[in-house]
Amino acid sequence: MIMSSRRHFLTAAIAAPAVLRGASTRSWVEVEKILSSSNVKGRLAKDEVPTPALMLDLDLFEANVKRMVTHARENNRALRPHGKTHKCPEIAKYIIKQGAVGACGAKLSEAEVFAAHGVRGLLVTTAVLGKHKIERAVRLASTAPDTIFCVDNAQNAQDLNDAAASAKRKLWVAIDLCVSGRTGIMPGAAAVALGEQIANLPNLQFKGIQAYAGGASHTKGWENRQKASLAAMTPAIETRAELNKRGINTAWLSGGSTGTYNIDSNIDGITELQPGSFMFMDTDYNVIGGKGTGDHYGDFGNALTILATVVSRPTDAHVIIDSGYKAMATDRSFAPVPKEPGIKFGFNGDEHGKITSTAGALKLQTGDRIEIIAPHCDPTVNLYDRIYCTRGQQVEAVWSIAARGMSQ
Amino acid sequence: MIMSSRRHFLTAAIAAPAVLRGASTRSWVEVEKILSSSNVKGRLAKDEVPTPALMLDLDLFEANVKRMVTHARENNRALRPHGKTHKCPEIAKYIIKQGAVGACGAKLSEAEVFAAHGVRGLLVTTAVLGKHKIERAVRLASTAPDTIFCVDNAQNAQDLNDAAASAKRKLWVAIDLCVSGRTGIMPGAAAVALGEQIANLPNLQFKGIQAYAGGASHTKGWENRQKASLAAMTPAIETRAELNKRGINTAWLSGGSTGTYNIDSNIDGITELQPGSFMFMDTDYNVIGGKGTGDHYGDFGNALTILATVVSRPTDAHVIIDSGYKAMATDRSFAPVPKEPGIKFGFNGDEHGKITSTAGALKLQTGDRIEIIAPHCDPTVNLYDRIYCTRGQQVEAVWSIAARGMSQ
Repeated sequence: MIMSSRRHFLTAAIAAPAVLRGASTRSWVEVEKILSSSNVKGRLAKDEVPTPALMLDLDLFEANVKRMVTHARENNRALRPHGKTHKCPEIAKYIIKQGAVGACGAKLSEAEVFAAHGVRGLLVTTAVLGKHKIERAVRLASTAPDTIFCVDNAQNAQDLNDAAASAKRKLWVAIDLCVSGRTGIMPGAAAVALGEQIANLPNLQFKGIQAYAGGASHTKGWENRQKASLAAMTPAIETRAELNKRGINTAWLSGGSTGTYNIDSNIDGITELQPGSFMFMDTDYNVIGGKGTGDHYGDFGNALTILATVVSRPTDAHVIIDSGYKAMATDRSFAPVPKEPGIKFGFNGDEHGKITSTAGALKLQTGDRIEIIAPHCDPTVNLYDRIYCTRGQQVEAVWSIAARGMSQ
Repeated sequence: MIMSSRRHFLTAAIAAPAVLRGASTRSWVEVEKILSSSNVKGRLAKDEVPTPALMLDLDLFEANVKRMVTHARENNRALRPHGKTHKCPEIAKYIIKQGAVGACGAKLSEAEVFAAHGVRGLLVTTAVLGKHKIERAVRLASTAPDTIFCVDNAQNAQDLNDAAASAKRKLWVAIDLCVSGRTGIMPGAAAVALGEQIANLPNLQFKGIQAYAGGASHTKGWENRQKASLAAMTPAIETRAELNKRGINTAWLSGGSTGTYNIDSNIDGITELQPGSFMFMDTDYNVIGGKGTGDHYGDFGNALTILATVVSRPTDAHVIIDSGYKAMATDRSFAPVPKEPGIKFGFNGDEHGKITSTAGALKLQTGDRIEIIAPHCDPTVNLYDRIYCTRGQQVEAVWSIAARGMSQ
């Protein structure tokens, strides 16, 4: 248990010799006041954060961003990191400041939140369908005119054009290409025809192609991944070339993930990378294998953790922490990994996790805190309203995950 | 696609012959106004709700509540349904109105939200630890003095007593008993000693025992479940008897789940049931087997669904809907079940699901909507900010899931 600072430690030691384990000298009312203010820097210790909490190690996060931004710049690719990972306007704006061209939003409502917080250069990566959402897309474009909307069928292109025409606006659109069995139109003739249609619609501005190879991103082994990404992206590159050949300016092709960033940046014809997880990393990506690093993928540091508290110690063999299905993603089969060595995590229902020892007697007592490395970062982040950003043992900022829950 | 009402259908047919598939005659701006008002009844069709959305069929929900309330009353047991399932003050208050004695909150912060919305008769089912949370517990008790806090170790009992004494208050506490490997103190001598300690602490009021057998609740086969619950609950009943024998009034023993409600209500010594999932039901409980109904457990209707929209149709073999890991729980291995027959759901990442046909050609087109029966209801609800309550094709109310994310 670490006190908030040396000064506080000394104050506590002098003024209150019988403090509880891990206790702060501040009252909760004081902590609440600090949390509701816009400036927490230097005023809050990591140990004072109520658990379960989502924690971001700023040193690791900033290094991750620097590495990706530098890689994109050195390889002459645009970088538009995916906002579905962080759902946090502060993070989108920070990465743009470091050199990204904008941010992706998985859904319209997510992009709306980013736009409302001043993020520009948005790409909405899922098609926007139906009268109401198209009305919202036109409204979004009036706030953030450089927003690109993905389209994968003729009727939707026509509907977007008509709504834009009624509002006397022009919408930027891209073809969403199906390169790994998820959304999109099939590459080749169908996609080329859609591109020609879009280019001819007066209220749409054709920007290019999105081709996200979800299957390639998690292929195990860097060389296998390289093959998978090349196989998935080649039809996209060919579709782009065909459109350009027909005089339809297709300057832009967005692909790339945290798993393929240093693969797609070497494939001619891919102009932009849209990775997300790299900024946080997770145990899901840790096991896909790296370039020249074997089974472990360690290009980016594990900056995102769940801070948990031991709430019960029924026996000497296990303790229960306050973090279960509602505190971290459960969509992968492996168990989340505690940051501390010698212990093992297992889910124990909605609200709890069970910690057992992997080496000797279990030393954890009720009130002790542990950190768990985020498993699959995107759905983990989506469970929290705020992210506590730390530098060492101090909380430097508390950012709102303003687009949490925005799956519409 | 169903229009909001016959009247609206006729209006649409006359005024706008070329409406989009599933389109409403209302604009999104009008829908937004309705959603932000306190009264949506008769003003919004199910088909106008932006997807993915969490939907509650009120007819089924009310029947589920009626069945449980009636069962508890007829078997002379108190009913305190678990609020971790719904996280919704309106639901807590509705069930209390029907006859429940209060609501459980899994964590302190969840109970705080319920109390702030006027829910009384709260039981906080996880121990409240550490200086800050104990301060909050005392504050909560000043708002809702009949709140019961669970305790499973001597130090925590002492800490709660001391904080209550400083505030010149009395806290109601119960022993949390470990009956299935989760939280709590072990039954027997240890628990009896804790009960004696609590009874002697001047600022604590000892209320009884919580014994939640999480392991028994999902045991497959009703007879097996009966054996499992009896085995888990017997030590709790014995501990209660021992405390009463020693003159420590232990009037109250809370157990019971959706899986064991009609088992625990026949076990002498259990005075209260704390089930949660019964009100919504989910595919997780559907497969545990019922009393005299074989493998299927159908005592309660599947009132909770996820409404989704087809956003892409890349091939004739599958369509993609807008609902993935962020739209429903993923903590069970089986796939969520669409309400419509003849189709199958599979997850397709954070934002999407893949629908394939199980019978003939796949007829779904982009823009079509489908409903998916909630898999594991508690973590599904925790992904949403609101629940759309429907009666037939009309939205009757929109309730805030005010305690969503309150895992602290």
